[in-house]
Amino acid sequence: MTAPLHEGRAPGTGRSLPDTQQGMRRRNLARVMHAVSAEGPLSRATVASRIGLTRAAVSTLVDELIRWNLLEELGPERPGRVGRPGSALAVSGRGPAGIGAEVGVDHLAVCAVDLRGEIRARAVRHGANRGRAPGPVIEELTALVRRVVGEAEREGLWPAGLAVAVPGLVARDGRTVVRAPNLDWHDVDLGALLPDDMPLIVDNEANFGALAELWLGAGTPLDFLHVSAEIGIGAAVVVDGRLLRGTRGFAGELGHVPVRPDGPACPCGGRGCLEQYAGEEAVLRAAGLIPREDLVGLLAARAEEGDEAVRQSLRDAGTALGIALTGAVNLLDPESVVLGGALAGLSAWLLPSLEAELASRTAGPACPVSVSRLGPEGPLLGAAHSVVRAVLDDPAAVAERS
Amino acid sequence: MTAPLHEGRAPGTGRSLPDTQQGMRRRNLARVMHAVSAEGPLSRATVASRIGLTRAAVSTLVDELIRWNLLEELGPERPGRVGRPGSALAVSGRGPAGIGAEVGVDHLAVCAVDLRGEIRARAVRHGANRGRAPGPVIEELTALVRRVVGEAEREGLWPAGLAVAVPGLVARDGRTVVRAPNLDWHDVDLGALLPDDMPLIVDNEANFGALAELWLGAGTPLDFLHVSAEIGIGAAVVVDGRLLRGTRGFAGELGHVPVRPDGPACPCGGRGCLEQYAGEEAVLRAAGLIPREDLVGLLAARAEEGDEAVRQSLRDAGTALGIALTGAVNLLDPESVVLGGALAGLSAWLLPSLEAELASRTAGPACPVSVSRLGPEGPLLGAAHSVVRAVLDDPAAVAERS
Repeated sequence: MTAPLHEGRAPGTGRSLPDTQQGMRRRNLARVMHAVSAEGPLSRATVASRIGLTRAAVSTLVDELIRWNLLEELGPERPGRVGRPGSALAVSGRGPAGIGAEVGVDHLAVCAVDLRGEIRARAVRHGANRGRAPGPVIEELTALVRRVVGEAEREGLWPAGLAVAVPGLVARDGRTVVRAPNLDWHDVDLGALLPDDMPLIVDNEANFGALAELWLGAGTPLDFLHVSAEIGIGAAVVVDGRLLRGTRGFAGELGHVPVRPDGPACPCGGRGCLEQYAGEEAVLRAAGLIPREDLVGLLAARAEEGDEAVRQSLRDAGTALGIALTGAVNLLDPESVVLGGALAGLSAWLLPSLEAELASRTAGPACPVSVSRLGPEGPLLGAAHSVVRAVLDDPAAVAERS
Repeated sequence: MTAPLHEGRAPGTGRSLPDTQQGMRRRNLARVMHAVSAEGPLSRATVASRIGLTRAAVSTLVDELIRWNLLEELGPERPGRVGRPGSALAVSGRGPAGIGAEVGVDHLAVCAVDLRGEIRARAVRHGANRGRAPGPVIEELTALVRRVVGEAEREGLWPAGLAVAVPGLVARDGRTVVRAPNLDWHDVDLGALLPDDMPLIVDNEANFGALAELWLGAGTPLDFLHVSAEIGIGAAVVVDGRLLRGTRGFAGELGHVPVRPDGPACPCGGRGCLEQYAGEEAVLRAAGLIPREDLVGLLAARAEEGDEAVRQSLRDAGTALGIALTGAVNLLDPESVVLGGALAGLSAWLLPSLEAELASRTAGPACPVSVSRLGPEGPLLGAAHSVVRAVLDDPAAVAERS
C-alpha cells in the first residue's frame, strides 16, 4: 500500500507541499495542471499570465508535464496572430486515470476517469451485499477493478489510484470501515482486502458524493452541506472547498441528530434520531409498506400514483429533515444544502415540508436547498475524481511513481 | 481603516502569504517568530534546527526581526559549551502589542498584551449596555482603548491592532454587528465608530473565547466545540486549529438549534430552541427568580445553598444542552466540547445531566466535555491574542507599518 491520496481541496492550492524551492516547483507544476484543466486548451503564454509566472518558467514546467504524459500539445494555435504561433496545451487523455469504486447495499460499481474527467471504462454488478462477509464482497469488487483497469490500460491509461466509497463510517486512516450498519460490517480493514499495487483511499459515500457535487456540480458553492441517503442518512460538510472530517473521521452523522428527543429508540442508543423519521425504512414503515430491494423506486412510484399514506410519510420525513437541518444550518452557516443520493429521487415530495420547516425556524432568509443532478452516481464519480484531483494537485508525485 | 487582521490559524503556518520568493521569506520570518515564541529563549542554531533552515539563513532572518524590535538578544548562552557561545533569542517585550476589547451586556473591558503574551495594561468599566445606542457605548470603549494604549506606549509598546469582542453575530467583513439581541443592536458598522489609526477586527465573543482556549488553554485539541453563554448561548467551531466561520460569518448559532421542536416560541421565529431551555433568562424563569444584573452569581449562589428549584432548572438546562450538543457532536465529530463564559461558573450543576444526555444518545464513547479555566476572561484575552498571533504569523507586514 503506497501513500494515501490527498484529500479534496480547492483547485490549484496544493498547500500541503513542503515550503522549499523543491516544494515551490511542485506547487507551480500543480498550478499549470489546474490552469490547463480548468480552461484548456491554453497556450504557454496564457498559462503564464493566468498563474503569474514568466513564460520561460512556465515553458520549463510544461516541458516536464509533457514528458510525464500529463499534458499534450495540440499543435499550433490558430494562424493570423502576431508572433511565433504557440502550441495549445491540453490535459492528456492518456497517462494516469482515477479508479473509483463503490460498495452499495445492493450493488458494486467501478469506473475509470481520465485526467480530462471523462469516464473511459466502467463495470457494475447488481446483487444484495447486506449481511455478506467483507471478504467475498471485496473479492468481487477487486475483479471489477481488474476488469476496468484492463480496459483503461488498453486505451493507454494507467491507474494512479483507487478510491472506494462505502455506506458507513471510515476511520481517518482512509482504509478501515469502523461501522457500516446497512452492510453489517464492523472494524473491517479494507486496505488488507483490496489490491495493493496502487494508492488507495476508502471513504464514506456521502463524502465522495459531496466532492462530486463540489467538482462536477454547476455553481456549487465552496461551503455547503450535502445530505445523502440510502437506508441510512449521511451528510458531508464542505467548508472552503474541503471536507470537514472530524477527529475520528465521523463528521456528518446527520442521521443521529435528535429530532424529537423523546421519540422512538434508535439502534444507536439514542431516541428520536432523524433516521427514525426520514430513513428509508422508517418512511416505508410509516407508509405501511413492506421493504424490498428498490425502496426508493417503490416510494416514488406510490407517491406518483397519489398514494396518500406514502405522500404523508414523505411529508413527515421532510419535516424531520427540516428540523435536523435547522440545527445543522445554525451551527455551520453553509451557503446551501444539497440533497443527493436516494433523497434526490424523492425530493418532489420531501422538499415542500422540509423547506417550510427550515424557513419557519430561521431568523432572516432560510438557507437555500437544492437537489443534486448527479443523483446516485455522485459517490462513484466523486471517488474516481478524487484520484484525478490528487494528480492535478501534485503532478510530480505521480510522475515519480509512473 | 487599514487591512483586517489575519484570523486565527495553527502556529507557524502563515499559509495565506503569496507563493513567491518574497512570500517564502515572509513565511520563514513567521516560522522564526513562532519557534522563539513557543520555545524561547533559543539560540540561532536551535531555531535553525527547529525550522529546517541553515544557520546562515536563520541569522539573516533573525537580524531583521531584531531590527524590527520583534526579537531581542538576551546575551551569551551559558558558558562551558563547545564552540563560539550563541546569544539566546527571546520575543521582544517592547515593540508591537495586541489591544483586545470587549463589549459585554453589562461591562466594557480593554487590555494590551505584548508579543510574549503578557497583559501589560487593562481597563474595565461596569454598567449596563443593554438598549443603549452603539454611539455612546463605543465612545466609552474608545476612551478605554486610548487609556490602555497610552499606558502601553509608556512601556515602549505600540498598538499593532485592535480586536473587539461583541455578544452577537458579526458579518464576514469583520466590522459589522448584524445582530446583537442582548444589546438590541442591529446592522451597526463598528468600523465607523472605532479608532481608525490601527487595524481593526470585530468578532463574536464565542469566537474569541474559542481562540483563547486554543492558544492559552492547556492541552486544548485542534478540533473542538466551544460553548459560551451570557444571556444568549453562542458556540464556536474550531477545526484544525481554525475557526469555522460560515458563509455569512454566523456559524456556531447553537442557541437556536431546535431541542424540542414543538416547544415554546423563540424570538428567532422557531420553537423549542436551546435558548428557551438553557439561556440564563429561561433558567431564571424556570427557577421562579427575577432577573437582575449578575444572573450567574445569583444562580450559583442559590444552587450552592441547596435551592431545589434552581438546581432542577439547571439540571433541565443541562439536559437541553446535552440534546443540542448530541446533534452538534454527530455533525462535527470534535475531539472535545469546552464550556466557557457564564456556563463555566454553573458547570457543577449543569454538567451531570448534560453528560448523561450526551452519553445516552451516543454510539461508542461520548465526546468528552470540559470546563474552560479562562471563564469570563476568555473573549477579551482571545481578542488581544488574535492581534499578537497576526504579528507572529506575518512579522514583515507589521514591520512595514511600524
